[in-house]
Amino acid sequence: QGILERLDAGEIVIGDGGFVFALEKRGYVKAGPWTPEATVEHPEAVRQLHREFLRAGSNVLQTFTFYASEDKLENRGNYVAEKISCHKVNEAACDIAREVANEGDALVAGGVSQTPSYLSCKDKTEVKAAFQKQLEVFMKKNVDFLIAEYFEHVEEAVWAVEVLKESGKPVAATMCIGPEGDMHGVSPGQCAVQLVKAGASIVGVNCHFDPETSIETVRLMKEGLQAAKLKAHLMCQPLAFHTPDCGKQGFIDLPEFPFGLEPRIATRWDIQKYARKAYDLGIRFIGGCCGFEPYHIRAIAEELAPERGFLPEASEKHGSWGDNLSMHTKPWVRARARKEYWENLKPASGRPYCPCMSKPDGWGVTRGAKELMQQKEATTEQQLKELFQKKKF
Amino acid sequence: QGILERLDAGEIVIGDGGFVFALEKRGYVKAGPWTPEATVEHPEAVRQLHREFLRAGSNVLQTFTFYASEDKLENRGNYVAEKISCHKVNEAACDIAREVANEGDALVAGGVSQTPSYLSCKDKTEVKAAFQKQLEVFMKKNVDFLIAEYFEHVEEAVWAVEVLKESGKPVAATMCIGPEGDMHGVSPGQCAVQLVKAGASIVGVNCHFDPETSIETVRLMKEGLQAAKLKAHLMCQPLAFHTPDCGKQGFIDLPEFPFGLEPRIATRWDIQKYARKAYDLGIRFIGGCCGFEPYHIRAIAEELAPERGFLPEASEKHGSWGDNLSMHTKPWVRARARKEYWENLKPASGRPYCPCMSKPDGWGVTRGAKELMQQKEATTEQQLKELFQKKKF
Amino acid sequence: QGILERLDAGEIVIGDGGFVFALEKRGYVKAGPWTPEATVEHPEAVRQLHREFLRAGSNVLQTFTFYASEDKLENRGNYVAEKISCHKVNEAACDIAREVANEGDALVAGGVSQTPSYLSCKDKTEVKAAFQKQLEVFMKKNVDFLIAEYFEHVEEAVWAVEVLKESGKPVAATMCIGPEGDMHGVSPGQCAVQLVKAGASIVGVNCHFDPETSIETVRLMKEGLQAAKLKAHLMCQPLAFHTPDCGKQGFIDLPEFPFGLEPRIATRWDIQKYARKAYDLGIRFIGGCCGFEPYHIRAIAEELAPERGFLPEASEKHGSWGDNLSMHTKPWVRARARKEYWENLKPASGRPYCPCMSKPDGWGVTRGAKELMQQKEATTEQQLKELFQKKKF
Amino acid sequence: QGILERLDAGEIVIGDGGFVFALEKRGYVKAGPWTPEATVEHPEAVRQLHREFLRAGSNVLQTFTFYASEDKLENRGNYVAEKISCHKVNEAACDIAREVANEGDALVAGGVSQTPSYLSCKDKTEVKAAFQKQLEVFMKKNVDFLIAEYFEHVEEAVWAVEVLKESGKPVAATMCIGPEGDMHGVSPGQCAVQLVKAGASIVGVNCHFDPETSIETVRLMKEGLQAAKLKAHLMCQPLAFHTPDCGKQGFIDLPEFPFGLEPRIATRWDIQKYARKAYDLGIRFIGGCCGFEPYHIRAIAEELAPERGFLPEASEKHGSWGDNLSMHTKPWVRARARKEYWENLKPASGRPYCPCMSKPDGWGVTRGAKELMQQKEATTEQQLKELFQKKKF
Repeated sequence: QGILERLDAGEIVIGDGGFVFALEKRGYVKAGPWTPEATVEHPEAVRQLHREFLRAGSNVLQTFTFYASEDKLENRGNYVAEKISCHKVNEAACDIAREVANEGDALVAGGVSQTPSYLSCKDKTEVKAAFQKQLEVFMKKNVDFLIAEYFEHVEEAVWAVEVLKESGKPVAATMCIGPEGDMHGVSPGQCAVQLVKAGASIVGVNCHFDPETSIETVRLMKEGLQAAKLKAHLMCQPLAFHTPDCGKQGFIDLPEFPFGLEPRIATRWDIQKYARKAYDLGIRFIGGCCGFEPYHIRAIAEELAPERGFLPEASEKHGSWGDNLSMHTKPWVRARARKEYWENLKPASGRPYCPCMSKPDGWGVTRGAKELMQQKEATTEQQLKELFQKKKF
Repeated sequence: QGILERLDAGEIVIGDGGFVFALEKRGYVKAGPWTPEATVEHPEAVRQLHREFLRAGSNVLQTFTFYASEDKLENRGNYVAEKISCHKVNEAACDIAREVANEGDALVAGGVSQTPSYLSCKDKTEVKAAFQKQLEVFMKKNVDFLIAEYFEHVEEAVWAVEVLKESGKPVAATMCIGPEGDMHGVSPGQCAVQLVKAGASIVGVNCHFDPETSIETVRLMKEGLQAAKLKAHLMCQPLAFHTPDCGKQGFIDLPEFPFGLEPRIATRWDIQKYARKAYDLGIRFIGGCCGFEPYHIRAIAEELAPERGFLPEASEKHGSWGDNLSMHTKPWVRARARKEYWENLKPASGRPYCPCMSKPDGWGVTRGAKELMQQKEATTEQQLKELFQKKKF
Repeated sequence: QGILERLDAGEIVIGDGGFVFALEKRGYVKAGPWTPEATVEHPEAVRQLHREFLRAGSNVLQTFTFYASEDKLENRGNYVAEKISCHKVNEAACDIAREVANEGDALVAGGVSQTPSYLSCKDKTEVKAAFQKQLEVFMKKNVDFLIAEYFEHVEEAVWAVEVLKESGKPVAATMCIGPEGDMHGVSPGQCAVQLVKAGASIVGVNCHFDPETSIETVRLMKEGLQAAKLKAHLMCQPLAFHTPDCGKQGFIDLPEFPFGLEPRIATRWDIQKYARKAYDLGIRFIGGCCGFEPYHIRAIAEELAPERGFLPEASEKHGSWGDNLSMHTKPWVRARARKEYWENLKPASGRPYCPCMSKPDGWGVTRGAKELMQQKEATTEQQLKELFQKKKF
Repeated sequence: QGILERLDAGEIVIGDGGFVFALEKRGYVKAGPWTPEATVEHPEAVRQLHREFLRAGSNVLQTFTFYASEDKLENRGNYVAEKISCHKVNEAACDIAREVANEGDALVAGGVSQTPSYLSCKDKTEVKAAFQKQLEVFMKKNVDFLIAEYFEHVEEAVWAVEVLKESGKPVAATMCIGPEGDMHGVSPGQCAVQLVKAGASIVGVNCHFDPETSIETVRLMKEGLQAAKLKAHLMCQPLAFHTPDCGKQGFIDLPEFPFGLEPRIATRWDIQKYARKAYDLGIRFIGGCCGFEPYHIRAIAEELAPERGFLPEASEKHGSWGDNLSMHTKPWVRARARKEYWENLKPASGRPYCPCMSKPDGWGVTRGAKELMQQKEATTEQQLKELFQKKKF
């Protein structure tokens, strides 16, 4: 059954987790560029991660094609072996995803994301051409549906949806925004409306914010669609990091990004709460993004097992709410084998010299701004902000 | 070259990271039992993790035989498919480790750990027989050397070393203790002395405590050996969790163990500091245990690259001290591409409702103690402590 | 010169600090009732605190008549010696304030605050009568001006201003609200407008929220007045506690209120930042409420000394920005004798087992709600909320 | 009854709190010099603080003669009005203390503390002369007993006791040390032994460390006395600040000293726990030092009211364990009127951008050390440490 058949029938669809962060920690992706040349260089590593998400309960395997547009791969070219073409990266990604999907009950989704072409102000035709190039591979490899994800500007996301929609396959679209809306100031509700009007059947958010904030953003999207009398399925794939201190642009601006985020990592219990809240809001495509490891996806599947009627395969290695601690040798560890314990635990950081929250970096306060001023590109804060809009950082 | 040739020549030997925690998160190991039946059930997952550690710089691949003694596997039998024998688990572990070791420059170490037989007060002969059974597989598969690790009682560790020593292969021995010594009150210095006298060429600690505490324990071992005029190589494989609030028995007693430890996870920079401190103390076998992911091992290899003269393979996907952030689109993220930044960062937890430290559970304060009292096994705290020693929880 | 002459001339007027909290710690006020019978019982203690604020720089001494309306004193009557009448308490308060004011350059302000009569839904006439009774004493004792402070409902505050205004003396009015407005949902801007229309020459906020939040509320009041083309002087007298985690009703709902607020106490440097921010927003009547000790008031006077041209008397015992540490015996303490040091210090709590923020108690989550439900006064959350509005807790 | 009669009879004697910190906040003492010229300049402020401690339950009023030796007053002379002699400061202190003591049931204790003469290596005769000079005033004013307090070096404390002992009055002696002992490395046990041998009838610690650490130090003193078969009453007057992160020299070295300690201030409940623990160890002279406000002393008196059979006068304004919150208008605040609530509260700091612990400043890591090196007084860390000992910082 296709993605829309499932969602239309009221099924819960569980997404997968974050590839670039997980594979960076495993040694196959470079932080900063975040490009997916590993599909060609180390397919076994990509395959294994897909497999872990599948076992954990994912119903959708996204091709590992994040930042795999030609312009991005070239832009970050010094990191990529010369002969790995955009075409090859995307093809390999499709093959690996399909191979693992066939090991279970999962759909393959071809994914595109925001492009350097847009950020450097190329025109609509050029930006669309980048998506078109990836789409050709997805069509050749016959993916099950398409996802346009990780867009900071709804304008570009709409262009992506327009390209993908031409394929005739179902299209999902998520933006990496919070409740304050996109980088041009378009509200979440308006973003959702534009995406649905462009042809997306599923809309929501991914990345940049923690589960709580992301659910709030999807709530605003839902309200926007209702006000516009539009219908679409809702989707949420947030970070597995706690980021209550984020500004408008999300976790990128936090001083800990990307190499000091460890103390923010969500526990499995945090994710169970997220899954329940997402479900209660009516979101039916529930997954994760950066920071989501296989056990986080399993936590979604376990929380929603009563509704779905089954547990994922990987639960053979996991007792619900820690219940297999009940045979531990130490009585006080046995006492942890219960839902109430883990639900109420306030986990300590073990870092008494560190704070709980950070001030995000950003314009007006950073050396970045000063640099631009020194380069005479801007002399006032207003000019900086305009430059910021124009340059689309 | 063998392990002793390398260490005798003054080389730094990098160990691997933690299998049970990493594979639990990937969906292949059950927390609580922590047994390694995955070597038979899902060899591809074990192989992939070995490979990631190898790429990250490990010079030693330990067979994934933690808690793979026959008594342990039986003890946790309800979790293991019936037909997976101790023999098969250990054989598969050796085969997988060797296969990956051949992909690079690594030694294979056969590993044994503490047994339920000892904890339930079986006699020396019976306990030794458990180690002997595993050793037979290691000899048949011709591992390069042997490690006795994760012992809370030096008495049992000595027995293990005695068994392993008979093989004629080099023996390393580590205990999961802190500066307060083993569960019978033997100091780290005395533990080291006994292990060396029993035949260990390499001694140190693994698991249960964070890097800082573990280095302190090894320092006490070093002093004990010096006082006794004994020589041995030093080894350290700590947790990748911050645990300044541990009691004598380490992180097991922390309320967050094992499902809420996320905010304690070490950053790569924390591990670089650990590697430097370990090196400065004269430790030359430097690795990790629970919580160590491949990127943590890579951090050891990168910190000690000046001394070793080379970087690990996985550094192709990692710039030293974040230097590949220098091409990020946002100037304030570019500003993070320097050693001083990451070295001084105090990472926030993003959890303002959580504390920094926890009080460990344990005797006298827990329901465990109360249970024993209700069972009339003890009526005073003194009796509880004795029972605790006797039962060897 | 009167209060309006000073403010009209652009002078900065420094208020005083919090009497009930300071005198509770000194042993003269009972937390919970918070009534000021100490003016009769222990005048020397009240006099000394006035004197300390005067020395610290206060230009206004408020009579210690908080919660000194007759209905309140009776309501809390079991705490007050039988023969201490409302009249006596208010008279003594005026006498003490005047006596100390004469020791320096300060005005005496007679103060009224919200009444139990209003909260228990007595009518306008009855509520106004309570204010009228206090006003008679203030007129007899000839205070310099009047302050209506600590109102959660603008309706009652307007009634108070109307009564006070009849005296012909200048009237200031502050509410204990945050940016979300009063307990009936009236916005700060609207509150300010109503108060000015009722006759207040000075409007602002006091108590319930920390300096940062309070300044934000006054900013909203200022905008409201500008939009309505009304003019008034602005006033701010916040808590000296950090309360970023407050809900709509402020610090009362925090679990630490009133006996566990210590870790939230502002440093003198926090208060200097507050004074500067308040000044920059155009607030010219700058003081404090609960938690403000004399040294906090001194911090306001020191921060604004450049604008005012003089230091308060108590600065004879205080070097600016810690500069008299420069003669400390320890070099590392001498190194603290500079503005940059104290400005950037992030003070540690010394409480690693405690969190940084709390969830406020309140309707829907508390036993209070359950109690009301058990009393059959409400059966749904909606009813509870209505009851809450009606009862004016 | 005298101090020894009371203690010999098994009575609990409650000391007073911290004058220099309390009066600094009230505007009468300068941080850094910490000298008590206020006894002459502002006797009413000193008198009021004595009175508050008396009302809170203090059985002993210490003359406010901290740092009132002639050498200290001269040393800090630029802060003191020229004509205020050491003689006058000490006389006024005695008069004020006696005047207030007569308002209740309290003894007056004349106090001396460490001298600049000792720290600048003057000889025994000269140091003793400083104590002698103060003692003359105490004898003329006929104080009830004598306290030598706040000594970092037991050698000087012994000299002080020797001088005071000649008066024939009972002598108490406390050091400002922690479990690591005095600045010359003498253990707490040895310090206690030397002080008792020199003539002290009461020994213990004051200042520099939090209650928990201070009790541990007194425990070590008790053990030292038992081992030496000596008898003395035990005394404890710690900080009312949480300082788990202190080094050997206590809170002076914490970066927050002295102007950023607010988040560390103990609650009344913390102090009740301290009083109970101190009592349980056998300490019978229980008071406080810097940070102790009147309500903290009241907390001692309330905690030990069952043993003593009465409450202090100031408890007329305080319900045990918050019980007078039971008439609060809000049900959820009423729910706080119980012991269990306050005993278990983990108070939040309201400072999510601040850490829980600090690294103390000190030798080897500070600019102080670097300065000395630049001045060529030391070139190695060892030399620095020697210099440090010699200079007696």
